[in-house]
Amino acid sequence: MLELQVGVAKIGKYATPESGDTLEMIERPHGGFSFVLADGQGSGRGAKTLSNLVTTRAISMLKDGARDGAVARAVHDYLYAYRHGQVSATLNILSVDLSARSVLVSRNNPCPFYVIDEQGMTTYNEPSTPIGLYSMTKPVITKISLRPYVYVVVFTDGILHAGRRYNESIELDNYLGNFNVRQGRTAQEVTDDLLGRAVELDQNRPNDDMSVIVMAALPMESENKVRRMTVCFPVERA
Amino acid sequence: MLELQVGVAKIGKYATPESGDTLEMIERPHGGFSFVLADGQGSGRGAKTLSNLVTTRAISMLKDGARDGAVARAVHDYLYAYRHGQVSATLNILSVDLSARSVLVSRNNPCPFYVIDEQGMTTYNEPSTPIGLYSMTKPVITKISLRPYVYVVVFTDGILHAGRRYNESIELDNYLGNFNVRQGRTAQEVTDDLLGRAVELDQNRPNDDMSVIVMAALPMESENKVRRMTVCFPVERA
Repeated sequence: MLELQVGVAKIGKYATPESGDTLEMIERPHGGFSFVLADGQGSGRGAKTLSNLVTTRAISMLKDGARDGAVARAVHDYLYAYRHGQVSATLNILSVDLSARSVLVSRNNPCPFYVIDEQGMTTYNEPSTPIGLYSMTKPVITKISLRPYVYVVVFTDGILHAGRRYNESIELDNYLGNFNVRQGRTAQEVTDDLLGRAVELDQNRPNDDMSVIVMAALPMESENKVRRMTVCFPVERA
Repeated sequence: MLELQVGVAKIGKYATPESGDTLEMIERPHGGFSFVLADGQGSGRGAKTLSNLVTTRAISMLKDGARDGAVARAVHDYLYAYRHGQVSATLNILSVDLSARSVLVSRNNPCPFYVIDEQGMTTYNEPSTPIGLYSMTKPVITKISLRPYVYVVVFTDGILHAGRRYNESIELDNYLGNFNVRQGRTAQEVTDDLLGRAVELDQNRPNDDMSVIVMAALPMESENKVRRMTVCFPVERA
């Protein structure tokens, strides 16, 4: 058996009540899961509304069985038509397709994503544009076969640019390039580590909304067929 | 600060490739989250398709901002109209509404749900019918205020009836009635414990699809504003 783990961690821009990043997960009708991550232009309420609109449309289509490439195109077309090319959002869809035994990453985002396996790290940074601004925008789609000791790391630009205002850099290439997949670190450990570094580089006041998704495929000894999800979020006391 | 934790665990009926229970989570447009749990009539592929249909419709409406009671009614009407009163599904919606500082449970399910706080355990078992069979079915809705040391426990009937074929009973009243909320057990610990007991009572061959959701509101020392989600699911190796 393989255990698929997905870890997600998010934090909003400092002193901004709402994060403009929205992350949604759905179970795919043919089996497997999709994680949809949108970063709405700007920050605060407007950005949140925008990323909510984009993810709502995307998960509705994915739940209806639409393929990821069609979803990314249609969500772009919707945003472009109804907001007249005046607002943009980045859109990443990470899908685990159990029937095809593969992971698909659809990217409408200048930010790269990373895959780490026993051969080392690969950066996927083909030119890619956010949705909403120009007609006929389409995603860059990458297929990764599902095998033990593979990590897929996807994030929004708040992570990539962490520390910039202090002339520091998160140096993801360095950090992920030295990552030993055989240690079998959990997806949540890697997620927390990346978000923690980014927040620290921004001196504990995130300069932008930050979101990280890490998927890990790890060997599993037991035959335990239980699926689990844990969600934790802080709420201010009344 | 309060930490809201939600734990989910699911397992399918023994020797059945697909679980007929579907669980989806969405972020609500006004803040907070909704968990939608549907148990499609029967088991296997037909039940899975049904519970997928029901949850898809529900999360699309919830993401559009519809109130939970309207969603449960509309999803029933849809199923009743298009499947002619011939199929049924149970539907539970557990929503954390951050603006109203409350938890709402909408129940179209003969199975009860439980709330445990410092005053003890409360069983919510007002008569409630599944959706799909009769015209004008509506949910039973319960509002719980968000406060420290509250646990909300929701599940499908595979949990409630665990052990039945061996003349055993899970005795949830007993187990949850003796639960000390001040111990601050995590939502995932309680979830895993409940599912583990149910599977054991069915002698490790679950007699039905089983799903558990536990929400816990616990005091939190730190000012950490990170939101986290972890998903783990086993996949058979090729």
